[in-house]
Amino acid sequence: MSERITPYTRRVFYYETDKMAIVHNSNYLRIFEEARLDYMEKAGLDYPALEARGVLIPVVSASVRYLSPLRYGDEFSVETRMTAFNGIRFSYRYRIVRPSDGAVCAEGESGHCFLDEAARVPVSLRRREPEMYTVWKSLMDEETEHGT
Amino acid sequence: MSERITPYTRRVFYYETDKMAIVHNSNYLRIFEEARLDYMEKAGLDYPALEARGVLIPVVSASVRYLSPLRYGDEFSVETRMTAFNGIRFSYRYRIVRPSDGAVCAEGESGHCFLDEAARVPVSLRRREPEMYTVWKSLMDEETEHGT
Amino acid sequence: MSERITPYTRRVFYYETDKMAIVHNSNYLRIFEEARLDYMEKAGLDYPALEARGVLIPVVSASVRYLSPLRYGDEFSVETRMTAFNGIRFSYRYRIVRPSDGAVCAEGESGHCFLDEAARVPVSLRRREPEMYTVWKSLMDEETEHGT
Amino acid sequence: MSERITPYTRRVFYYETDKMAIVHNSNYLRIFEEARLDYMEKAGLDYPALEARGVLIPVVSASVRYLSPLRYGDEFSVETRMTAFNGIRFSYRYRIVRPSDGAVCAEGESGHCFLDEAARVPVSLRRREPEMYTVWKSLMDEETEHGT
Repeated sequence: MSERITPYTRRVFYYETDKMAIVHNSNYLRIFEEARLDYMEKAGLDYPALEARGVLIPVVSASVRYLSPLRYGDEFSVETRMTAFNGIRFSYRYRIVRPSDGAVCAEGESGHCFLDEAARVPVSLRRREPEMYTVWKSLMDEETEHGT
Repeated sequence: MSERITPYTRRVFYYETDKMAIVHNSNYLRIFEEARLDYMEKAGLDYPALEARGVLIPVVSASVRYLSPLRYGDEFSVETRMTAFNGIRFSYRYRIVRPSDGAVCAEGESGHCFLDEAARVPVSLRRREPEMYTVWKSLMDEETEHGT
Repeated sequence: MSERITPYTRRVFYYETDKMAIVHNSNYLRIFEEARLDYMEKAGLDYPALEARGVLIPVVSASVRYLSPLRYGDEFSVETRMTAFNGIRFSYRYRIVRPSDGAVCAEGESGHCFLDEAARVPVSLRRREPEMYTVWKSLMDEETEHGT
Repeated sequence: MSERITPYTRRVFYYETDKMAIVHNSNYLRIFEEARLDYMEKAGLDYPALEARGVLIPVVSASVRYLSPLRYGDEFSVETRMTAFNGIRFSYRYRIVRPSDGAVCAEGESGHCFLDEAARVPVSLRRREPEMYTVWKSLMDEETEHGT
């Protein structure tokens, strides 16, 4: 993980639980999204600006491994890193940790592409937004250097 | 309720429950929305067409009285009626009933306006979409005749 | 509002929006719940302890007036106060403000009762949990003194 | 897919969309859950009875490939099959199809175990609920015969 990007943290909301008294499995994809957008913001990858310029970032794949259930009130921390980026597609990896007992609660990945909002076709960030591409590319290089 | 518009029915999904093992209070507003759009469709008030023409129907107010909690697997039926319509604002009333024991599970209301999507200002349906206005107006007259 | 209880704040998550590009109406009830539980915690009304002792706090009524839509990324602040408490039922009032432009985005209320988890019948907090009752009662007195 | 188990179908709800005007990625896990529980019911695998006897079925892993976005009002059909079952763990596979244009909208898998509700440890269905085990086992054999 990039040294300068701190983990995303918050506590579990009541409405995120289901009748098993644990966070519903679908909500982990929402937590991944929160963590991903927080990471982007901290890294200077301005997603709202990108969307304002007509480029969306849909999810093309996602996976989760549920290891220790989160419960109402649990504080959790999400370690996020970008694991691939070629200007057309990119990937993130997530690890949700519960500081109170050190448990790894879940791990997962998501894959994304850049999409033209109007045409609804994939676009090359390098050609469409070259300045933004440079920022994303630098971050990927930084991640690769520090990566596992 | 209009004689020709049948109630909206489905069963409770697992993920709609919370750790109290009942449907989360916020989900009743989602069920009201499902019932309202189903009512509109059955009544010939074509909401997708309206939205495609740049008119949105946001919610300006909503209220719920929770009477008997819905649980996972419960089948429920929503009786919906339009209770006011003047071409600028309109209101709906809802009653959620559980056929298995006849319980009234919840009652509520919602208020709405017509909104221009681009300008984000309220619009008069009569002036903006006169043909659609006529259909809505007729339905309101029909509701009034059969009302309460 | 009690002087010592600070407003609840966070930012809008992407998944809280709908295709109108605003926060879905149902999510305001979720935000109210977040704010209510945050208020309880700050006030020393220990809800997790209450639930652990078999007393639930279901919602018996709720209402929202939507004034200015919240959008993705908006920071918001919720001013919460307890407006009634008699040991059997109690009420909260909420005001969601967006600091960036000072807009009041929504206002609302919720009504609650204390419920025995096993028997699923309302209980008197005074008789069931007299020590907790005293804390709640003191807070209500404090709210009344400072109240509008 | 078992010949006798029909696909699960419904239409997309308005609140399932996000500001990209497509169904939010997390909701596909909810749709998988709806389809899985519908499949279980149609197959005679009585999940509510199992839960009433203190056996939960948490999700231990899940994955989704998003192929063609679902939009508000789309009717979709989910083809579900059980792909593995050994009495302790089991897996499902899902394919969401949109009949209007024949598009495969998403594919995915989920992995599950049987969990003792009180002890929160995995249990063997064969030992804990032998009669139910037999029903599940027969279905798995049936799936294997008809499987791809």
